[in-house]
Amino acid sequence: MPPLATLPCASSSSLYPYSITSSFPSSSSSSSSNRATASTASLAFGFRAKPTIPTKTLGRPGIMTLNSPIRCAVSIEKETPETERPETFLREVDGGRNGAASSPSESSVRARFERMIREAQDRVCEAIEAVDGGGKFKEDVWSRPGGGGGISRVLQDGAVWEKAGVNVSVVYGVMPPEAYRAAKGAAFDPKPGPVPFFAAGISSVLHPQNPFAPTLHFNYRYFETDAPKDAPGAPRQWWFGGGTDFTPSYIFEEDVKHFHSVQKNACDKFDPSFYPRFKKWCDDYFYIKHRGERRGLGGIFFDDLNDYDQEMLLAFATECANCVIPAYIPIIEKRKDMPFTEKHKAWQQLRRGRYVEFNLVYDRGTTFGLKTGGRIESILVSLPLTARWEYDHKPEEGSEEWKLLDACINPKEWL
Amino acid sequence: MPPLATLPCASSSSLYPYSITSSFPSSSSSSSSNRATASTASLAFGFRAKPTIPTKTLGRPGIMTLNSPIRCAVSIEKETPETERPETFLREVDGGRNGAASSPSESSVRARFERMIREAQDRVCEAIEAVDGGGKFKEDVWSRPGGGGGISRVLQDGAVWEKAGVNVSVVYGVMPPEAYRAAKGAAFDPKPGPVPFFAAGISSVLHPQNPFAPTLHFNYRYFETDAPKDAPGAPRQWWFGGGTDFTPSYIFEEDVKHFHSVQKNACDKFDPSFYPRFKKWCDDYFYIKHRGERRGLGGIFFDDLNDYDQEMLLAFATECANCVIPAYIPIIEKRKDMPFTEKHKAWQQLRRGRYVEFNLVYDRGTTFGLKTGGRIESILVSLPLTARWEYDHKPEEGSEEWKLLDACINPKEWL
Repeated sequence: MPPLATLPCASSSSLYPYSITSSFPSSSSSSSSNRATASTASLAFGFRAKPTIPTKTLGRPGIMTLNSPIRCAVSIEKETPETERPETFLREVDGGRNGAASSPSESSVRARFERMIREAQDRVCEAIEAVDGGGKFKEDVWSRPGGGGGISRVLQDGAVWEKAGVNVSVVYGVMPPEAYRAAKGAAFDPKPGPVPFFAAGISSVLHPQNPFAPTLHFNYRYFETDAPKDAPGAPRQWWFGGGTDFTPSYIFEEDVKHFHSVQKNACDKFDPSFYPRFKKWCDDYFYIKHRGERRGLGGIFFDDLNDYDQEMLLAFATECANCVIPAYIPIIEKRKDMPFTEKHKAWQQLRRGRYVEFNLVYDRGTTFGLKTGGRIESILVSLPLTARWEYDHKPEEGSEEWKLLDACINPKEWL
Repeated sequence: MPPLATLPCASSSSLYPYSITSSFPSSSSSSSSNRATASTASLAFGFRAKPTIPTKTLGRPGIMTLNSPIRCAVSIEKETPETERPETFLREVDGGRNGAASSPSESSVRARFERMIREAQDRVCEAIEAVDGGGKFKEDVWSRPGGGGGISRVLQDGAVWEKAGVNVSVVYGVMPPEAYRAAKGAAFDPKPGPVPFFAAGISSVLHPQNPFAPTLHFNYRYFETDAPKDAPGAPRQWWFGGGTDFTPSYIFEEDVKHFHSVQKNACDKFDPSFYPRFKKWCDDYFYIKHRGERRGLGGIFFDDLNDYDQEMLLAFATECANCVIPAYIPIIEKRKDMPFTEKHKAWQQLRRGRYVEFNLVYDRGTTFGLKTGGRIESILVSLPLTARWEYDHKPEEGSEEWKLLDACINPKEWL
């Protein structure tokens, strides 16, 4: 890693691994298809944001006020660039800096999840730089006055990767009471208070140069609400979400089998139902509805997961994050130097266009981030360096391009 | 133009020049900023579509059923490819084929608007091919069994234009009664019927190769409802919408002045308030909220326009469509062969990325089209052939790139 640097616009808010409303459990939280297709879910609680228009400056206002015409208002604090990575982004009360080092809160799920994603970020970035050989990650560190912050790392125009982003962030926020009520399914409460929440996540998209080397995305997140002050006895709620999926432009069956078997092995250590359920959830979530195609060849995806032991789910998310390198790097090593033609590159660019369509139109984290005034460069680092849209392009039946498209339209069982 | 051809997937539904709900007049129809920033307006009447997932075929189902979870259901007929351009896409009762040639309906606004956009399509395509010198438009003609249809024309990889689409279409549809009630502002009616509507429009996006040559977009549309059968005395309603705007990557002040003065002259022939009002409306509409930037350097934009004489507005829309060639072609002639560097091209590609962001995230016609199952290739022909996203790109202050960005952030009065 390069030494820490303060950059002119070092403030950041991650790739937006979470949208607030996507993290509520509901009666359908275990039904993958219902949740996964609810791409507009983040609007469901009235978070239809209308940021103040900065008409007279190149910058953005210090406080972004979001007004929903319907039900609630949310204020998001402006990030502050930091010159150094802090030990932790947690508040003191959660075991953060200056907090008692041996306090029990240090072993809280919040604290352990943050440690896990910070370590995963370091390991993945190290592995990417080692394989790339030339590119180095540029790092932006930021914090928010009320607690929380993040580390964004981007490698651009490397030897192997066109664009690689690996972000972690910790957010302390407040959700409108309507959202909490909807989550609890409670009856109308005439005087509810806002509900504080904590969220932490890692999110990454890695776009290689070579058209035979797949794009990878992974994202693991933990979400917790404080018990509401005006509702004594109401429980603290928590959820895990995340997944790892990959997007080749060409199918090498051995690669797909390798990738999916690493995911399955990670899942099987915890519950035999996880892989089939999260594999289907992934196929359902990364669906470009207007094309009738998935973005890629899937992997695993889950959200709003809280119906298992909390320690077990923390261990599961940790295992998944640890599997990113063994699932992905061996494939890259095999494909990064394969010779290719302009035709292969053009097809990769068309598939990158599909990636853009999914992320801008459907991805919950992205659409939520855009609407709520997060740091745009961090949210949109998921977009590829280059993409292409040809009118009415149709691969020849039976061609390698057609086979990839067919697998995106008709998801397969690879194992 | 090339001879008419039937293509394997010749069915089409235009660049989607209209979204149903954007065409309702309302108390704020004359307030540009309110309407223009309501980018989610097409969801407001419950058109949140969930197309049937075609899991087992490469094609699309014959009938696309759209279910809103909230209030209404809409079925869209599948288009049928046609081998020949028909004289008209109007129903017989409106003066369509086999209808009495001299019937009064032939001079209806519907009929005259269709003739106007068909002629404009021919003239613009002819002018583009003449300047391009090499590229030819590929044409797709289609109809719907219940009436209506369209002509899509796309020129790709030409000498001057990277991608140029010019589409016309005529739609006979039925809107849910809730939409009509909302439009009328009437009190609740317990047994309303669906309201038939007619819409016709031309829509075009022209992306040149040379980074000094601007992208152009124009779009003119006419919308009419039939009087509802169960509400005797309820009036037939109608509206006009449209605009012409351009998107350079570099500012040549003489070009911008020329472009805007052609728009102003067209407006001034009808009402001195039109240019200032529609210029501002354009700046407000083509706003990429998450960037705090406009897509380009504007032009004119109006929607839901019905508070003037109908004949006057028909003449105004005709004048605007007729101005596309004199506003745009002289600029292209001057810029198409200018020498440029890789740096200029990369900046153009970044601005193309912004074009993609606006169209996929905010443009009403595009987002409505994607949600309602229109023909994707026709809707997304507005996207450029190639685009680029660099992490945290910031042009050097005072550079030519910075000047363009500044004008997109702080819209200027050019005349």
